[in-house]
Amino acid sequence: MVQIASKNEVVTLINVFTVTPETQQKLVNMLVEATQKTMRHIPGFVSASIHKSADGTRVANYAQWRRTEDFEAMLHDPRASEHMKPIRDIATYDAHLYEVVESIKAGD
Amino acid sequence: MVQIASKNEVVTLINVFTVTPETQQKLVNMLVEATQKTMRHIPGFVSASIHKSADGTRVANYAQWRRTEDFEAMLHDPRASEHMKPIRDIATYDAHLYEVVESIKAGD
Repeated sequence: MVQIASKNEVVTLINVFTVTPETQQKLVNMLVEATQKTMRHIPGFVSASIHKSADGTRVANYAQWRRTEDFEAMLHDPRASEHMKPIRDIATYDAHLYEVVESIKAGD
Repeated sequence: MVQIASKNEVVTLINVFTVTPETQQKLVNMLVEATQKTMRHIPGFVSASIHKSADGTRVANYAQWRRTEDFEAMLHDPRASEHMKPIRDIATYDAHLYEVVESIKAGD
């Protein structure tokens, strides 16, 4: 179970891809395959949760890495680049590294 | 603890706000206050996790609602609008409702 908490010692990548309803499922499949085959074996990977928007226009990857340095090393890893290039060819994206400031549940 | 899982019976709002380093902390504070004071008391609210980007240019709200109908009812709730209007005045945003397709951890 992936957990979100302000005390988590992770950095969070939120990457929102802009797609069309025609390309949305293809991009989801590519991200799931890249994560299963490659990303989860790269040092510092904690989790990745792939989301698709109800309106068909977005795919979001909510991913956790142990440290910023691990994430940056992945960006220069040829195994990762091999998966990311075809993804960049079919979608634009807005990717940033975040920290969780506050996590609030209904019962809090 | 907020949890992400493909079997979760929730809908997920991912709202990415574009800010400047000067307005980032202010927006974080406004979102935390809106969530604490109002959102978490609205029927169907499950959780909200407020994130700020390391580069100072984004704030992201990863929020879970029980059903799409609950989220849409909130949009028309005057208590919610009162908090959201000043937020819209200082930041643009990209908000969509998502479902979790796949959630993968390092040990999976």
